[in-house]
Amino acid sequence: MASSDDILLSAVLNLLSAFAFLVAFAILRLQPFNDRVYFSKWYLKGIRASPRSSGAFVRKFVNLDCRTYIRFLNWMPAALRMPEPELIDHAGLDSAVYIRIYLLGLKIFVPIALFSFGVLVPVNWTGKHLEQIEDLTFSGIDKLSISNVPSGSQRFWAHLVMAYAVTFWTCYILYKEYHIISTMRLQFLASENRRPDQLTVLVRNVPPDPDESVSEHVEHFFCVNHPDHYLTHQVVYNANNLAKLVEKKKSYQNWLTYYQTKYERNPKIKPKTKTGFWGLWGKTVDAIDYYTAEIEKLSKEEALEREKVMSDPKAIVPAAFVSFKSRWGAAVCAQTQQSCNPTIWLTQWAPEPRDVYWDNLSIPYVELNVRKLLMAVAFFFLTFFFMIPIAFVQSLASIDGIENKLPVLRPLIQMEVVKSFIQGVLPGIILKIFLILLPTILMAMSKIEGYTSLSSLDRRSATKYHFFILVNVFLGSIITGAAFEQLQRFVEEPPSEIPKTVGVAIPLKATFFITYIMVDGWAGIAAEILRLVPLVMFHLKNTFLVKTDQDREQATDPGSLNFSVSEPRIQLYFLLGLVYSVVTPVLLPFIIVFFAFAYMVFRHQIINVYDQKYESGASFWPDVHRRIIVGLVISQLLLLGLLSTKNVARSNVILIALPILTIWFHIFCKGRFESAFVKFPLQDAMVKDTLERATEPNLNLKAYLKDAYVHPVFKGVEFERPTALDDEENNPLVPTKRCRGSKTQSEEGV
Amino acid sequence: MASSDDILLSAVLNLLSAFAFLVAFAILRLQPFNDRVYFSKWYLKGIRASPRSSGAFVRKFVNLDCRTYIRFLNWMPAALRMPEPELIDHAGLDSAVYIRIYLLGLKIFVPIALFSFGVLVPVNWTGKHLEQIEDLTFSGIDKLSISNVPSGSQRFWAHLVMAYAVTFWTCYILYKEYHIISTMRLQFLASENRRPDQLTVLVRNVPPDPDESVSEHVEHFFCVNHPDHYLTHQVVYNANNLAKLVEKKKSYQNWLTYYQTKYERNPKIKPKTKTGFWGLWGKTVDAIDYYTAEIEKLSKEEALEREKVMSDPKAIVPAAFVSFKSRWGAAVCAQTQQSCNPTIWLTQWAPEPRDVYWDNLSIPYVELNVRKLLMAVAFFFLTFFFMIPIAFVQSLASIDGIENKLPVLRPLIQMEVVKSFIQGVLPGIILKIFLILLPTILMAMSKIEGYTSLSSLDRRSATKYHFFILVNVFLGSIITGAAFEQLQRFVEEPPSEIPKTVGVAIPLKATFFITYIMVDGWAGIAAEILRLVPLVMFHLKNTFLVKTDQDREQATDPGSLNFSVSEPRIQLYFLLGLVYSVVTPVLLPFIIVFFAFAYMVFRHQIINVYDQKYESGASFWPDVHRRIIVGLVISQLLLLGLLSTKNVARSNVILIALPILTIWFHIFCKGRFESAFVKFPLQDAMVKDTLERATEPNLNLKAYLKDAYVHPVFKGVEFERPTALDDEENNPLVPTKRCRGSKTQSEEGV
Repeated sequence: MASSDDILLSAVLNLLSAFAFLVAFAILRLQPFNDRVYFSKWYLKGIRASPRSSGAFVRKFVNLDCRTYIRFLNWMPAALRMPEPELIDHAGLDSAVYIRIYLLGLKIFVPIALFSFGVLVPVNWTGKHLEQIEDLTFSGIDKLSISNVPSGSQRFWAHLVMAYAVTFWTCYILYKEYHIISTMRLQFLASENRRPDQLTVLVRNVPPDPDESVSEHVEHFFCVNHPDHYLTHQVVYNANNLAKLVEKKKSYQNWLTYYQTKYERNPKIKPKTKTGFWGLWGKTVDAIDYYTAEIEKLSKEEALEREKVMSDPKAIVPAAFVSFKSRWGAAVCAQTQQSCNPTIWLTQWAPEPRDVYWDNLSIPYVELNVRKLLMAVAFFFLTFFFMIPIAFVQSLASIDGIENKLPVLRPLIQMEVVKSFIQGVLPGIILKIFLILLPTILMAMSKIEGYTSLSSLDRRSATKYHFFILVNVFLGSIITGAAFEQLQRFVEEPPSEIPKTVGVAIPLKATFFITYIMVDGWAGIAAEILRLVPLVMFHLKNTFLVKTDQDREQATDPGSLNFSVSEPRIQLYFLLGLVYSVVTPVLLPFIIVFFAFAYMVFRHQIINVYDQKYESGASFWPDVHRRIIVGLVISQLLLLGLLSTKNVARSNVILIALPILTIWFHIFCKGRFESAFVKFPLQDAMVKDTLERATEPNLNLKAYLKDAYVHPVFKGVEFERPTALDDEENNPLVPTKRCRGSKTQSEEGV
Repeated sequence: MASSDDILLSAVLNLLSAFAFLVAFAILRLQPFNDRVYFSKWYLKGIRASPRSSGAFVRKFVNLDCRTYIRFLNWMPAALRMPEPELIDHAGLDSAVYIRIYLLGLKIFVPIALFSFGVLVPVNWTGKHLEQIEDLTFSGIDKLSISNVPSGSQRFWAHLVMAYAVTFWTCYILYKEYHIISTMRLQFLASENRRPDQLTVLVRNVPPDPDESVSEHVEHFFCVNHPDHYLTHQVVYNANNLAKLVEKKKSYQNWLTYYQTKYERNPKIKPKTKTGFWGLWGKTVDAIDYYTAEIEKLSKEEALEREKVMSDPKAIVPAAFVSFKSRWGAAVCAQTQQSCNPTIWLTQWAPEPRDVYWDNLSIPYVELNVRKLLMAVAFFFLTFFFMIPIAFVQSLASIDGIENKLPVLRPLIQMEVVKSFIQGVLPGIILKIFLILLPTILMAMSKIEGYTSLSSLDRRSATKYHFFILVNVFLGSIITGAAFEQLQRFVEEPPSEIPKTVGVAIPLKATFFITYIMVDGWAGIAAEILRLVPLVMFHLKNTFLVKTDQDREQATDPGSLNFSVSEPRIQLYFLLGLVYSVVTPVLLPFIIVFFAFAYMVFRHQIINVYDQKYESGASFWPDVHRRIIVGLVISQLLLLGLLSTKNVARSNVILIALPILTIWFHIFCKGRFESAFVKFPLQDAMVKDTLERATEPNLNLKAYLKDAYVHPVFKGVEFERPTALDDEENNPLVPTKRCRGSKTQSEEGV
């Protein structure tokens, strides 16, 4: 067990490393040549165009103004200064609400910490239980924890009261926060400008019709069943092949520009390239001629593919984006069942155009269910048995394993340095690589499950990752042993034993988790603001790969809040805070520092750096809320288990009410707020419709929506609409009063 | 353990008692004076008016035609003869689908029984395990069960294969049945005549408005948010007091008629009555004068109360029945969220007018949630701890208890007969009384939970009762000991032990459950058709209470399928069949006989006797399906537990897939079919609307709907509409083309 001196040392070390990161950040961010890395959001917004100081050549790269270095922590107040409405406007609601998670952590834990330190710490400290046991080494932290209270003591009443106080305070704050955020979301949706997704519904599982194309079928169905509201629709093309071709052509065009520039600068040497991979091997040819020819070839292929996609009915997937004349019509269609067979004509709100995950739009109902089952089973095995393949790979990567498989390497391996590297570091690296790959694996699994928007994919992956962390980090750290051994124990032990086993281990692990919070939390967040990987990548790309200005633009990776990875990690801190608030309150200040520091850092990042890929209007909040509730219930059960070993009279009866009340509170909140995140109330839709009709009576909605939901590969290119869609214009089923002329005019306007 | 001879004897006895019931029924039903009891449905339909033979006076009461007695089992083929469409027409979809539950039992268990007898019985029989154990008494039934197979034998493969066969067959049949019934429901809804509930939505939690009455507020809200579809609405009055007055007046009027008739028959004696309860004590007065005066007084009170209800804004509860111009509009409103606050303006399909449970229409959201929490806790205690108060009452009802509490009764108690009665029978009777009262208690709990229709109350009570039976009858019979002891065991035993403990006990209890099936199933169903209680009640009422013809009509209690009680009981048979299909297949024929017999009896009853209180369009089927799935999963887990004690290699791994697949199948079916029972597809609504518009273009819907959702207490009386509603007629927000004249005309027509 670490002594409190160890903890102090570790705290100092971590504070120093965090401070070093901050100093490094403060220096690096002031250098103009890093400007694009640390202020990428402003570049993307077009507000910041070039490095700030435009003096001497050196000044373009290095900031020589000493005064700016003195105020190196200036970014902190600056980050806090932007008021929330402006922040929402600047960075979107998703980001603004995301950082409120950290704020929520502060709101929950600061009062609890004050209260705990006022009540529990004295109670524990004067318990003097540990001092009475001989031959026991214990740290100062243990003296402040529940372990220091003797079994059967009346002092436990303080802990019981505290458990109730924590639960009620947490629920109260959660309720208030849910209320605020659902209001923010509704206001955000209400104040938004007109957006195509407000008027559009995604229809999936369009049933096949022998006589009609998908487009015709969709049109007829909605003309019949939503006669007063249906406006137009957009079929979905299976354009994955085409997208690949376009991507390839773009890359070739970059190379061509690069060689052309090179040739212009130095007209004596005609640039050469090799035809193989990345120009590294193969036949040497004239670069400009080669790429010109390749691009021409690709253009032909692309045109052919484009034509094929447009004309081949099989390239149209049985899904469509159906747009309505009013938000009311769209809200109605999204929330109702269309056909008596609930597996066809499935409607849901269309995600934002950039939020659509195009590959998953055409999965049939049965297949979707089978996929979900398979992924559930796979996820179960991944969570509980991932150590088995890892251990297998680790055994392969042992000295003997490599010697057996690759005898060629024997001389190399027998060198002392290599040997110790393989023995000491490689197994750890293999595990680390797996953990780094894990979010990608989870995201791939969510994609297989068939979600149709990036935001839902993120939410789904976060759920999986949260469970993985809960089992393998939280429980795995408390009960040593691989997850499948825990699983076996859970099945074979009585349910009342599990909280006991885990609960008893909880106070012993406090120092471990304090260290964890400092390493992963404090230093991790400080590393986040430094953005070391994007910084290095940007300069590498800038030096070796950037050939054109456009490339430099692309080399800047602003990054984004990675909800699917970072939110589950925050949840671990919530869980730790709730679990230890009654047991070892000393842990709370460390968590508070984490939340406060992370809040500041992420507020800075979303203002200056990140560029969100989509805007879901904080639709992830119900998940955040639910997971905090899960943490709360876990903490209650563990306290129940812990106290039941301490001979506290009636503690079981007193504490069992807490999880019941908490779960009830969750159900209550779900009913009270969740629909704000999944449904769109008709009243709000009607208000917005009426307003729009009053302010813009002559709006040509059809033209506005025409190309809103076009596969990104068709964006920008002149989009030739297929015949079926042209027919629709003259279709008597959709009475339109507009004349062709005005329509073309407004089309040009868009 | 009962030997197979005991079982045979019990079977013969039960068959004889069932036969006796049937013979009694055959004789009684032919007597004209029982006609109203055994053919009440036909009387209610007005098809059967009077006893069939209208000859001599005796013949009016006793059937003397010997030939009819010979064909005493004639009702059986007669019951089966009516084809299903006609049955639906005659008895409603609820009843027709209800008896399909029995048919489903036959479809599942007949093939399983055949297969089991072909495969498992020989395998078990030749296992010869029991014969090798010395000093063991076992019955013939045990030789046919899984107990007869030695531990670790390869023969268990047969059981594993059989477990898969049972699961797949059951799921296949369940899927087919769900498909059939959802189709039946949709066809039923589509073919129905126009009914007010098709066009009406129940709106609850209308928010209070300082400036407007509930009626105005509802009207304005829907005029604004459903401008093209809103037609009219009906406020809900809190008329519970008025209903009591009306009921009282009706009873007094009956008494008055009775005394008047009596006086007319015998004008010499002026009938007297006493003013006390039921005319049993109090001051003696002239009956006719007394009742005339009382009725006059009540009429005044009623008029006063009626006026109060109509005029007092507080008598209007914040709920309303809102009707739309089309089914499409109603479907849209019922399925969408109206306000951004999801706890106000809650919309749902209106139940049928006679299905509405009026008392629960005005419960605020928070209170509803608190009520549900309290009822959940109460139900938990009821299920697991009901034995404690029962044991307390039983202890009170012991000799000592009574002697202590009521010393007056001592001489009586010390009589030998009374003593043995108290000791032997009273505790059993107290338990029996509790079990008879249980459905009423559960129904009261469901009412407190705040459901708004009788059908949902029935479904909810059935869910509770099913859980109670599962815990206290099924598990309680297998593991002896009170439910709370089981609960304790479940908490303190490892989860893997529970299926083992229960699973091992399963084969031993086969004979007990066979006896149970015969007593509760066979004889119980035979008693059902005899309708002993309604028969006795009818004749008692007829002799002592019936005063008028109207009373005789009311004395006939046709009864109805009591879904909340009988469906959970059927589920016990499904559970037993599924559990024993692999373990002791000998039990299956007994279950098959039960299902076949019950199917016939209930088909007869719904054709000839029962009168349903409401028609929910088989909306209970998802519950039936889910509960059979629960039974299937329980059977799989118990088999898993049983086989894990038999040293069957890899049986755990092989069998664990079954519950996972079954639960997945349930989720799949839920997605595939359930919405047919909760939502109403827009396509179907549109078809019906279009059809109606074509066939009856001049229909005055508003007049049709005017009084559809009036509290039953206002039915029949001239309903004076309050001013708020009159205003609405002239309200410019609802443009109506009809003139007052045509409206009054069609009102008279309705």
